[in-house]
Amino acid sequence: MNVYRIDVSGRTVKKEKLPQSYRLLGARGLVSSIIAAEVDPTCDPLGPKNKLVFGTGLFAGTSVSSSSRTSVGTKSPLTGGIKESSAGGPAGLYLGKLGIKAIIIEGAPQDDQWHYLKIDKDGAALLPAGELAGLGCYDACKKLQKKYGNKCSIFVIGQAGEHKMFAANIAATDKEGVPTRQFGRGGVGAVMGAKKIKAVVIDGADVGYVQPLDKEAVKNASKKFAQGLLKNPVSGNALPKYGTAVLVNIINNVGALPTRNFSAGTFEEVNQISGEAMTELQTKRGGKVGHACTPGCVIRCSNIYLDKDGNEITGGFEYESICLLGSNLGIGNLDDIAHLNRLCDDYGLDTIEVGAAIGIAMEAGILLFGSFAAAKEAIHSIARGDVLGRVLGQGAKVTGQVFGINRIPVVKGQAMAAYDPRGIKGMGAIYAVTPMGADHTAGPSCTTFIKAKPEEQVSLAKEYHIKATALDNTGLCRFCSYSVFNDPDTLHALLELIKGYYNIEITTDDFWNWGKKILHIELDFNKKAGFTVEANRIPEFMHTEELRPNEVVFDIPNEELDNILKF
Amino acid sequence: MNVYRIDVSGRTVKKEKLPQSYRLLGARGLVSSIIAAEVDPTCDPLGPKNKLVFGTGLFAGTSVSSSSRTSVGTKSPLTGGIKESSAGGPAGLYLGKLGIKAIIIEGAPQDDQWHYLKIDKDGAALLPAGELAGLGCYDACKKLQKKYGNKCSIFVIGQAGEHKMFAANIAATDKEGVPTRQFGRGGVGAVMGAKKIKAVVIDGADVGYVQPLDKEAVKNASKKFAQGLLKNPVSGNALPKYGTAVLVNIINNVGALPTRNFSAGTFEEVNQISGEAMTELQTKRGGKVGHACTPGCVIRCSNIYLDKDGNEITGGFEYESICLLGSNLGIGNLDDIAHLNRLCDDYGLDTIEVGAAIGIAMEAGILLFGSFAAAKEAIHSIARGDVLGRVLGQGAKVTGQVFGINRIPVVKGQAMAAYDPRGIKGMGAIYAVTPMGADHTAGPSCTTFIKAKPEEQVSLAKEYHIKATALDNTGLCRFCSYSVFNDPDTLHALLELIKGYYNIEITTDDFWNWGKKILHIELDFNKKAGFTVEANRIPEFMHTEELRPNEVVFDIPNEELDNILKF
Repeated sequence: MNVYRIDVSGRTVKKEKLPQSYRLLGARGLVSSIIAAEVDPTCDPLGPKNKLVFGTGLFAGTSVSSSSRTSVGTKSPLTGGIKESSAGGPAGLYLGKLGIKAIIIEGAPQDDQWHYLKIDKDGAALLPAGELAGLGCYDACKKLQKKYGNKCSIFVIGQAGEHKMFAANIAATDKEGVPTRQFGRGGVGAVMGAKKIKAVVIDGADVGYVQPLDKEAVKNASKKFAQGLLKNPVSGNALPKYGTAVLVNIINNVGALPTRNFSAGTFEEVNQISGEAMTELQTKRGGKVGHACTPGCVIRCSNIYLDKDGNEITGGFEYESICLLGSNLGIGNLDDIAHLNRLCDDYGLDTIEVGAAIGIAMEAGILLFGSFAAAKEAIHSIARGDVLGRVLGQGAKVTGQVFGINRIPVVKGQAMAAYDPRGIKGMGAIYAVTPMGADHTAGPSCTTFIKAKPEEQVSLAKEYHIKATALDNTGLCRFCSYSVFNDPDTLHALLELIKGYYNIEITTDDFWNWGKKILHIELDFNKKAGFTVEANRIPEFMHTEELRPNEVVFDIPNEELDNILKF
Repeated sequence: MNVYRIDVSGRTVKKEKLPQSYRLLGARGLVSSIIAAEVDPTCDPLGPKNKLVFGTGLFAGTSVSSSSRTSVGTKSPLTGGIKESSAGGPAGLYLGKLGIKAIIIEGAPQDDQWHYLKIDKDGAALLPAGELAGLGCYDACKKLQKKYGNKCSIFVIGQAGEHKMFAANIAATDKEGVPTRQFGRGGVGAVMGAKKIKAVVIDGADVGYVQPLDKEAVKNASKKFAQGLLKNPVSGNALPKYGTAVLVNIINNVGALPTRNFSAGTFEEVNQISGEAMTELQTKRGGKVGHACTPGCVIRCSNIYLDKDGNEITGGFEYESICLLGSNLGIGNLDDIAHLNRLCDDYGLDTIEVGAAIGIAMEAGILLFGSFAAAKEAIHSIARGDVLGRVLGQGAKVTGQVFGINRIPVVKGQAMAAYDPRGIKGMGAIYAVTPMGADHTAGPSCTTFIKAKPEEQVSLAKEYHIKATALDNTGLCRFCSYSVFNDPDTLHALLELIKGYYNIEITTDDFWNWGKKILHIELDFNKKAGFTVEANRIPEFMHTEELRPNEVVFDIPNEELDNILKF
C-alpha cells in the first residue's frame, strides 16, 4: 500500500510506501496516527505546520459492505485539538483499488493560486484549479466530471473552505457523483483551503477490487457480515426505510430534540419533519429513501430528496441536518430545510455547526426564529463572506461570543449534534470526553442511551467510547455498530474478514483494544496542544437551565466524566 | 477596614469586616485573592458565578504620592483566566478615606433593570440607573455629577460594557471628574455589564485622610518617597514633560512600534505622533501635559488634550492608545488619534484591544489602513452594536478568527500592548508568562529591556515579573517602579510607609516575596481554569515572520519562557 505526500510549498507529489507499522491502522486510527506523528500539536491549524490527511479503512477497495468510508485527519481550527472526520461515497473504494492508503497534504502555498489533485492508476498530479476557484461544490464537481467523466470520485471544498471558515467541511461525491457526503466536523475544509487545494479527483472506478489472501473464507465472512447488518432492526430495517431521519420522532419523544437554539427539547411541528413524513413525501414524489451512498452498501441509509415538481433538491439529507437547520431554527417545513441543506452542501458547510450558529444569531435577535428566508439569506451571506456571514461561518462559539449569547451549545468549541445532553445524559458524556469536540459518533448510538437507566449512562459511555473508536479504525460505516456491538456473529465475521485480508488472527479483546490505543494517541495530542480535563465539560447553562418540557439539567458530575477517560 | 458585598440577584448590600488575613493585601493582591477564594475558575465569566471586585491599595486614603490606584479583579471573559486591571483617579483615595477596602459585586440580575451603586460616609445603596442606561461614559458621569456634585468619583461602563463585549473597560473619573482613567484590559466592563451595574459613585472627597500610627515617621518617609520619584529621570522628568507618549520615539527607534497590524516596527509618520510633538502642540494650544490624574501625585504623567480651537478632545491620552489607534492603523495625525481615544473612553472600550481589532479588520481589507474616517465609523459601530461592531467589540482574537487573518497579536486571547515582542524580546517574555494575557505592566519598563543585552532578557523578565507584582500589591502607580526598583532609598521609604501605617516591619525580601505569593494564587486559578504552559506562548507568526525593518523574529525558546514561572 502507498501514501501520496503532497507538499503545496513546492507543489511536489511524492509516492511513499506505507510503513509496515501502519498496516493494521485504517481510517480514524490511520489519520490520527499520522497527525500525531507528523504535526506539532501547538501549531497554528491554518498555518504551514498543520497537515491534512485522507486515510482509507482496512477494507477499502474490497466488496465488503459499508466498508469504504474515508477519514480525514488534521489539527482542527475549530477545536484546536486533533480531528478526525469521516465521509461515505465511493472515494475510499477507489483509493483502495488504486492501492492508496493515505494522502498527506502539507506545507504552505507560496502564492494565491488554487490547485487540485488528480489521482489515477498512472499516478498523482497537482494541477491548476483555474476557474474552479470560487465555485460551490456542485458546480466544481460538474466541471471536473465534464473533464474526467462521471465515474471519478471527488473531495471538494466550497466557498466556506476557500474562506478558511471554521465551519467549512469537505464534500465527497456519492455514487451518482453528487457532493452530498460530508467530512463535516471541525473545520477540515478550512485546512484544505489554507493549503489552497480546491479538490481531489480520484479516478479508480474501473480498477479491479482488492483481492483477499483467502478468497473463500472472505467470501463467506463477507456474506455473514452483510447478513448481520441486514438482520439488525436498525441497520436492516429502520435506516433503509426512513434514513437517519427516523430519529426525529424518537428524540423528540424523549425531549432531547434541539429546538430554537437548544431552549427546548421538543418541537411543535415535529410531525412535518420526521423520517416517516419524509418517506411518505418522497415516495409520493418519486424521490428515493433507502439509497446507498457507495456501491455495495446493504444499509442504504441515504436518500435523494425531490421537490414537488420532481426536481432534486438535495441528497444525504440526515437527521442532524434536519434538526439543526429545522427545529433548532424553529423551521418546520421539510422542503425548506432540504433547501438549506443543499445550500450548505454546495457552499461546503457543516450543517450542524452552521445550524447551531444561526440558532444563536436568531436567539440574539439578528435573525428571526422560524424564518426560512432569513436562514437562507444567512447561509448565502456565509458564501459571500459578508461580515455577518463571516461570523456565522466561524461556527457557534464565535457567533455566540460576537452576539453576547451565553447559551452556546459547544464542547471544545464544536457545536453539539442533534441530541440535547440534558435529555440524553450519556450522549452528553460522550460529547464531553471525546477528543473531537461534541461529536455524536464517538460512542454508542443514541438509542443505547435512551434504553438504559440513568445509572448506566456513564458506564455505557465509557465502554462504547472505546468500542466506537475501534470500529472507526476499520473504515466501516458507524451504522455497522448496531450489529457489530450487539451480535457476536457479526463481530466474528468482521474478525474473519481481518484474517482473510491481513493474514492475522485477532481476538475480540484485541479488536476493542485498538480503540484504547487510538484514543490514547488522540488524547496525548490534545494534552500537548494544551487541553486539560476542563476542556471535557458540558457548558454551564446546561447544568443550570432546565430543558423544557421535561425540566431536566445535565447532572453527570465532572469526576464521573473524568473517569470515562481512565482506561 | 470594610468590604461592601453587593448581590445583584436580590439587590442586597452588605457591609462586612475585612478579614484580618487580608490586611496586608492591597489592589492586585487583594482582588486576586478574593477572586481565587470566591470564584469557581471554571465558571462562565459572564454568568452568575463570576464576581467583580474593586480593591484599593495599602495607602488608599492617605496623602502618599501616586498611591490611590484601584484594582478590579474578575475572571476575564477575554482570556478565560484571572484578571486584574488597575486605574488611577481619586476613587481609591476616597474609598480609603471612607474605610472601604473592597467592593464585591456578585450574583446574576433577575431582570433587565440597570442599577448603580452609591457609596458615601453613610453607607452604600443600589439605586435604579434609569436614564443612565444606554449613555456613554461622559454623559453618564455628567448626569451623576449633576445629582451628586463634581467632587464624587465614578466608575462607569459605556455602551460596550452594556453589550458585554470582551473589549469593554470600566472608566474611572480623574480629579476633574472626567472619565479618562481606565480599567482597560480583559473585558472587565463586560462583567460589570453582566451584573447590570452601570456605575459606582464614590462620594468621599470631604472625608478626612487616613491617619498613620506613627505620624512623624510617615511624614518623613512620605517626603523621601516623593523625592525619590522626582529624582528619577523618568518619573521626575520624562513623564511629566511628555507623558507616556515619550515612548513613541523610543520604541520606534528600536523598531518595535506596532504599525499596520504588527506588520512593521517603525512608522513613517512617527514625528507627528510623538510625545515631543504632543507637548509642543498642546503647549501652543493651552492644553496640559504634566497633569496629575489624582490629587497629590508628583509624577503627573497625564494630560488634557485640546483641539486647535482650544476645546478638550480627550485626556489621559497614553502611549499605548497613540500607537494602537495610530501607527497600528496607519494613522499619523495626533488630533485624529485623540478623537478615536475620546470615542473609546466614551463608549467604554479598551484602546489597546480595539486598536488591535481594527488593525486586523484593516489587514483583512474590511477597513482601509490610514483612514481616520473608517476607524471612527468602526468605533461608532461598536457602540451601536452593528454586526461589524459586535465583532470588533470582542477584540483582536475574535476579529482575526472572523476575518480569517492569522496575524493576530494576542496572548491568552488578549491583545498585545504597543511593544512588538520581536523588537523587545523581554517584553514578549512578559506577555507570554503573565497570568493576565499580553500585559505590558506585568514586568519592568520596556526601557529596562531595551538597555539590556539579548542574553539578559529572560532573567530580567523573571526578576521583574515578581517585583512588579509585589509593587502591584501596594496600589502604588507602576511609574513608581522606576525609582522603587532602582533606588534603595525609595524602596526603604516605601518599607517605612508600610511600617508607619501597618505597624509591621518587613524586609526587602519580604516585600518582593509578596509578588511570588500573589503570582502563585493567580497561576493556580488559571491552572484550575484549564490553562497549561501552552497558553504561555507568543503567536506562531511572530516566530516565523520577520519584523521590518530590522528583520527580527521572536526567538526566546519555550523552555526559557517556562523557566520564568519556576520560582
